[in-house]
Amino acid sequence: MASRALKYYYDLLSQPSRALYILLEQTKIPFEKCPVALRKFENRSSEFVQNVNRFGKLPCIIHGDFKLAESIAIFRYLSREFQLEDRWYPKEGADRARVDEYLEWQHANIRAQCAQFFIYSWITPLLGMEVNQAKVDRLRANMIECLDVFEREWLDEGRKPFVAGKELSFADVVAACEIEQPKLAGFDPRVGRPHLAAWMERVRVATNPHYDEAHKILYKFTPKEIETPKV
Amino acid sequence: MASRALKYYYDLLSQPSRALYILLEQTKIPFEKCPVALRKFENRSSEFVQNVNRFGKLPCIIHGDFKLAESIAIFRYLSREFQLEDRWYPKEGADRARVDEYLEWQHANIRAQCAQFFIYSWITPLLGMEVNQAKVDRLRANMIECLDVFEREWLDEGRKPFVAGKELSFADVVAACEIEQPKLAGFDPRVGRPHLAAWMERVRVATNPHYDEAHKILYKFTPKEIETPKV
Repeated sequence: MASRALKYYYDLLSQPSRALYILLEQTKIPFEKCPVALRKFENRSSEFVQNVNRFGKLPCIIHGDFKLAESIAIFRYLSREFQLEDRWYPKEGADRARVDEYLEWQHANIRAQCAQFFIYSWITPLLGMEVNQAKVDRLRANMIECLDVFEREWLDEGRKPFVAGKELSFADVVAACEIEQPKLAGFDPRVGRPHLAAWMERVRVATNPHYDEAHKILYKFTPKEIETPKV
Repeated sequence: MASRALKYYYDLLSQPSRALYILLEQTKIPFEKCPVALRKFENRSSEFVQNVNRFGKLPCIIHGDFKLAESIAIFRYLSREFQLEDRWYPKEGADRARVDEYLEWQHANIRAQCAQFFIYSWITPLLGMEVNQAKVDRLRANMIECLDVFEREWLDEGRKPFVAGKELSFADVVAACEIEQPKLAGFDPRVGRPHLAAWMERVRVATNPHYDEAHKILYKFTPKEIETPKV
């Protein structure tokens, strides 16, 4: 199965694209890099929609002739096809369920809140559209509340080193890639959240050099008042 | 493992609560029914948050002493612990991935759009708050666009009988329970979508009598101009 060619379509400015990129590099799965530029709307071209991903989104894969979208679904598929180590996705019932619980919870929480704030406050002015400050404030407040829940419930105020417990899993990579994103829009999620800050650094160290490689473009565009690693 | 007591906390007015209820009944998993009244905010009581689900949401389970939230994560956990038949969650790589792809895609699409429309146009007036008609119209338009994508991409305009292909899976149950919800707010998703209407009826027939049992309360509160089964 693993001998079929695996093509990975991604843009490192997309949070889930970075998460899967880090996983693929860390696990040494052989894959062909197929970068797609969101800023040029390449993901919405009819060629892309017809031949790569019918939803016109990133990331996605083609494995042999099997096309698959949705980063979390791709992660589960890769974990079976390439028999990934337990550390990424534990096989035991309750441990696996805790990773799954995070991966489902994040959609309407960390993913939704960090992305909505980022898209509205960073992309809107980039497109030359006017920004409503009251809306930015509301989206920031929602994101702040969600980051506080994350630190309290998922990291147990620092008593849990990783999202699903004692070990790093793919849930941490997904979470960290989402929480990096608002930095681009001038919001540092680590300020006032020491447990979250320490956890982000643990995830980075545990998955480097690929974490920094995936985030190089994000570090570059982050306003200089927010500290980022030198890479 | 399966001999440990399984407690299921749910409210049949919640879409994912219905989906798991139907699965539990259809698969004959022994479970204790623990209804929780959303309308009385029982899910937000400190007793519930401390002892049942730290996020104060429904549905959730306690299996022995293991607490788990998030309906899709619970589904995966049950599929392993109770070794559910392949029909609900195929074991083969590509077939399973297609079910997973839907279960991840739906969060920011069918789930988000149908629930946002329902919550704003049905719950807001119930709480005695004023409804902004322009917002209702915008949410309805987003939902309509999403339902059209669903019919086109997931049902292939009627060429696919079920979401993940030729057979019913849990993805269909999840999708149908979400798409039922806007009926409460006077929107019939079947109008102008013959393939979606036929698929909904297939899902209902395939999972009855439990589908109707789970939806009895929804049928009761649906405005009478929208046809619902007599149960």
